[in-house]
Amino acid sequence: MELELKNWYKILAPRPTVVISTVDEEGRPNAAPFSFCMPVSVNPPLVAFASAPERHTLANIRKTKEFILNLLAKEMLPSLWVCAKPFPAGINEIKEAGLTQEQGKKVNVPRIKEAFGWIECRLKSEVKGGDHFIIIGEVLEAETRDDCLSKTGNLNLKATNPLLHLGGNEFGLATEIVTAQIERL
Amino acid sequence: MELELKNWYKILAPRPTVVISTVDEEGRPNAAPFSFCMPVSVNPPLVAFASAPERHTLANIRKTKEFILNLLAKEMLPSLWVCAKPFPAGINEIKEAGLTQEQGKKVNVPRIKEAFGWIECRLKSEVKGGDHFIIIGEVLEAETRDDCLSKTGNLNLKATNPLLHLGGNEFGLATEIVTAQIERL
Repeated sequence: MELELKNWYKILAPRPTVVISTVDEEGRPNAAPFSFCMPVSVNPPLVAFASAPERHTLANIRKTKEFILNLLAKEMLPSLWVCAKPFPAGINEIKEAGLTQEQGKKVNVPRIKEAFGWIECRLKSEVKGGDHFIIIGEVLEAETRDDCLSKTGNLNLKATNPLLHLGGNEFGLATEIVTAQIERL
Repeated sequence: MELELKNWYKILAPRPTVVISTVDEEGRPNAAPFSFCMPVSVNPPLVAFASAPERHTLANIRKTKEFILNLLAKEMLPSLWVCAKPFPAGINEIKEAGLTQEQGKKVNVPRIKEAFGWIECRLKSEVKGGDHFIIIGEVLEAETRDDCLSKTGNLNLKATNPLLHLGGNEFGLATEIVTAQIERL
């Protein structure tokens, strides 16, 4: 079935979803969810996400150069959904969603205490990409709650239950793991 | 728990995984998996992925400007894993993995018949990002098997069972859906 091109991205899913916290030039916090997001580089550690031009997140990052990716679990979906609302600039979505702010460790931006992981970033560059802007950030700090990695060193899905965006208000949950067989040499 | 910075990307997971097919300048097919991949733009339709500098996929795209993202289901994990092997240049991983080639519709690159979805792309630009290169592609065609979208217009997880990379040989499967409550106005 051929997809209408405007819907092409619905099949590159479900995607890890982050709530990005920032502050404006007056220090007022903002938080909003994004799922056009990917790792770019291991060393140096770089992450990229794509933002529509009108987002407050983008305006804040252009002004203050800092942001935090907050990783939220299944139980936080109602809070994430509040952060997705089009509040006026200056409204603190973290408070509106009933979430708790705590200070970032490496950047002057609050992070969401209830998240299971935090990736603190400094703006490195910005690239225009069609109807979005690609923001590339240098990762200054990555932290998780203590129980968030499995013995393999990968994310522990059971402990974290990350929200994966399918589209609109639908999110997938990854509840099962499959392992490729490594050949014995 | 603070993560070593080289492991930061393990928590931005599990990520949709694509097998990217390309051809070299002699028309010899190549296919390799990537999970540093995201939508960038809806209109124009743009996708981005990050490639390590030594990948044949990157060399081929620089030469021929075309590529296809093939979306593979759970059952295809052994085949995907064969495509991940470091074969010499010119070896056709699609054949090595026992998969079937069919001609792309808009680009002169074979796609993998057994995939549940195909996103055919033309190179738009390339951006250096740390130890990877970000390839931005214009989506020319997006297609799925007939049963791949649900009534909501989003990806049907049950019908497709997409592989989501956690790290190394571990992949997550999204078997459950949660839905945010939309406020009545």
